[in-house]
Amino acid sequence: MNTRMIAHLLSIILLIEAALLIFPMAVALIYGESLMPFLLTIGIMLLLALPFALHKPRNSRIYAKDGFVCVAAAWILMGAFGALPFVFSGAIPNYVSAFFETVSGLTTTGASILTEIESLPRGILFWRSFTHWIGGMGVLVFMLAILPLAGGQTMHLMRAEVPGPTKGKLVPKMRRTAMILYGIYIAMTAILVILLLLCRMPLFDALVNAFGTAGTGGFSVLNNSIAGYQNPAAEWVMAIFMILFGINFNLYYFLLIRRWREAVKSEELRVFLILVILATAVIAINTWHLYNTAEVCLRTAFFQVSTIISTAGFSTVNYDLWPELSKAVLILLMLTGSCAGSTAGGLKMSRVIILVKSTLREIRHVLRPRSINVVRLEGEAIPDETVRSATSYLALYMILFVLTVLLISVDGFSLETNLTATLACINNVGPGLKEVGPAGNFAGYSLFSQALLSLNMLLGRLEIMPVLILLTPRSWKKH
Amino acid sequence: MNTRMIAHLLSIILLIEAALLIFPMAVALIYGESLMPFLLTIGIMLLLALPFALHKPRNSRIYAKDGFVCVAAAWILMGAFGALPFVFSGAIPNYVSAFFETVSGLTTTGASILTEIESLPRGILFWRSFTHWIGGMGVLVFMLAILPLAGGQTMHLMRAEVPGPTKGKLVPKMRRTAMILYGIYIAMTAILVILLLLCRMPLFDALVNAFGTAGTGGFSVLNNSIAGYQNPAAEWVMAIFMILFGINFNLYYFLLIRRWREAVKSEELRVFLILVILATAVIAINTWHLYNTAEVCLRTAFFQVSTIISTAGFSTVNYDLWPELSKAVLILLMLTGSCAGSTAGGLKMSRVIILVKSTLREIRHVLRPRSINVVRLEGEAIPDETVRSATSYLALYMILFVLTVLLISVDGFSLETNLTATLACINNVGPGLKEVGPAGNFAGYSLFSQALLSLNMLLGRLEIMPVLILLTPRSWKKH
Repeated sequence: MNTRMIAHLLSIILLIEAALLIFPMAVALIYGESLMPFLLTIGIMLLLALPFALHKPRNSRIYAKDGFVCVAAAWILMGAFGALPFVFSGAIPNYVSAFFETVSGLTTTGASILTEIESLPRGILFWRSFTHWIGGMGVLVFMLAILPLAGGQTMHLMRAEVPGPTKGKLVPKMRRTAMILYGIYIAMTAILVILLLLCRMPLFDALVNAFGTAGTGGFSVLNNSIAGYQNPAAEWVMAIFMILFGINFNLYYFLLIRRWREAVKSEELRVFLILVILATAVIAINTWHLYNTAEVCLRTAFFQVSTIISTAGFSTVNYDLWPELSKAVLILLMLTGSCAGSTAGGLKMSRVIILVKSTLREIRHVLRPRSINVVRLEGEAIPDETVRSATSYLALYMILFVLTVLLISVDGFSLETNLTATLACINNVGPGLKEVGPAGNFAGYSLFSQALLSLNMLLGRLEIMPVLILLTPRSWKKH
Repeated sequence: MNTRMIAHLLSIILLIEAALLIFPMAVALIYGESLMPFLLTIGIMLLLALPFALHKPRNSRIYAKDGFVCVAAAWILMGAFGALPFVFSGAIPNYVSAFFETVSGLTTTGASILTEIESLPRGILFWRSFTHWIGGMGVLVFMLAILPLAGGQTMHLMRAEVPGPTKGKLVPKMRRTAMILYGIYIAMTAILVILLLLCRMPLFDALVNAFGTAGTGGFSVLNNSIAGYQNPAAEWVMAIFMILFGINFNLYYFLLIRRWREAVKSEELRVFLILVILATAVIAINTWHLYNTAEVCLRTAFFQVSTIISTAGFSTVNYDLWPELSKAVLILLMLTGSCAGSTAGGLKMSRVIILVKSTLREIRHVLRPRSINVVRLEGEAIPDETVRSATSYLALYMILFVLTVLLISVDGFSLETNLTATLACINNVGPGLKEVGPAGNFAGYSLFSQALLSLNMLLGRLEIMPVLILLTPRSWKKH
């Protein structure tokens, strides 16, 4: 492993994070709040990162494994340093909890340990939501767009970063790709901010909610999340944009280069949209008696479906009080998540499709042992390698899930709380049900559980493999 | 598909079931209860089955698919007819509920819709527990031992029947194998009955509890399950025997033919026993404060671990009141189940081992792409085919699980109830938590949910595939 090159890359990422801290600092300046938490953090980061950043090692080659380690370490370090402003400002005095909150932000989970949000300084709140936006497209796509690394090598980093089993290659030049995706991301966020302003949302709120929507994170600056605005128009806008940010970004690229047909005929998109419509319909019918008008019922159902399937995790209602069927539908959506190659978490739509189709193939195989069955996605045969990786991902996911539920149940919360807390963290959703539901938070968990759930958020965001490799002692041996 | 031959085989199975109904009828005779429910059922079965049984079709060849269909249909038919005595006696007036109870018995699940057990006729209670024992070794191993089918053809039936991915072939002659396994099963049950009698349990109770233990079913004849006996010695005996019936029967065969080493060195057995010890230790420590003496604490912990991991589902305590950690451990054990080739349900130990090892292999593969990694079980390389089948089984299992929870949540029970009810049915455990916990039952579920959960028990017992094939319209086409 090329430890020096990894240290060099990591130090550059930390410098970028330090630079991004200038934005919340500016907000703090505008609102006349203390700049100290940000200045102190930036100072520490510069001190530690600059020596490594300035010295580029002669051997700059990195391999697949290095790429995985680098990505995992980058997320952990960004969480570790990004937590400092929360500690220094006194917003979250305990470092482990601050780390939880920051990792929850960067992984676009949106699970919070804060009980009282509205009284916190604006600069801190801005930073909290800004981490969603930074995490959204992934620190590495980000890095790819900035760092002058040559073609082939960055491929490995990209593979570890872009979520889900994507298909349909983009332009082979990675840096250009990253720039394009990032451009789409910024443009869509900007449109969202403008629309929210048109809905008469104040600028600060429009910005932070746009960050939470674009990253499909779900941190909000009101104690009652989006319900606190009492703004139906803004709810519709955000619900639609959460769906848009849950769509594979490749499709937007296809739209951009006018390959309409490829964008429209996407099987993953079709399944995703059908699931959204079906889930909304079931919940709307199931909760019909709870709301006065059809608009309120439909909007509430669509908003919750959108916020859960996109794994954002905002809320306009305490859905923990809904009938069990609606809650079960939401849990299913937590599990599936949205499309691969989006900012959303979860198992990812294409992986779910592959899993369902490969199990159907197994049944066909037993029915007609001699027939040749291939799993198709987007009309093309999926190699066995990909199918195997999807099924073994499910197994890894299950093992992680069961172990986490087992370990956090030491804290004594109910099974429903522990199950949905773990589900919400691995899938980067944010809120679960009961104690960690939309009306609750993660503050009740012990620091050990908070650390473990932080690890789950990272594992879920990076689709498990890179973090596991980082934690494997063998990967640190030289060979 | 050879429909005639399947009808012929099914009719013979029904005749065997009719013959087995003589035992509970004898019990009813001894206790001076009405024989009518049994006579009526036997009459109906003879009327329907005899014509098909007497006429053996000229073409007696059956293929793999026919075998699957035959097994699935046999279980469903046995449930359908076995439910009649409950209906005729008025013990369970509703046919769907009676079907649920019978399928729960035959699949050795032990989930019950009965709220008041002790007042039921003895003959009916005997039949209820006897279905566990019949189901225990599987209707097909049973059939294999009786029916004069020649060698090769029965292989397919066996493949659909013997649970779990077994390794280490037994004697190739199927009928002899079945006889040997069945002999072990009867001998172990007899020893258990004698031991329970020595523990001063009345004969009737010793018999029905032995049936429930041997089949790892868990139906009891007291409202408080085994807690009602207040008999510590019997609890130890039953706990140990549930573990024994959860062990791969191949190992007993190896002991019988004095191949000690193969029996002792079994990796599956080792993992199974370690899991039992670990789980008992964790629960004993976690529930230490609830019990007065170390013996009570250890016995209670061991009994629950044994009854859940063997998927029997008896209870000596309402573990729904235990701390969350202990409950989470029990849920984990529900999931894993015991060894393949035993009467227990669940994912099966060897499948869990294969899943864990294959995911570890995936990690190794990423670490060292050029290294060759094989999954080993019992020291031998597992073919990729088996690994793939284990992972796709997990996927199928997950899909079934999620859909069932979704559909039964229409009834409005809590998530914890619905999750554990589904888990307890697919894994053939019996009781879950909350409303379906050891102090509750399945009576509150709608008839639709009861039917769906019955299907889950069958799917779990037959490891999903055969039932799915039976339900696939295409498998009924002639070709």
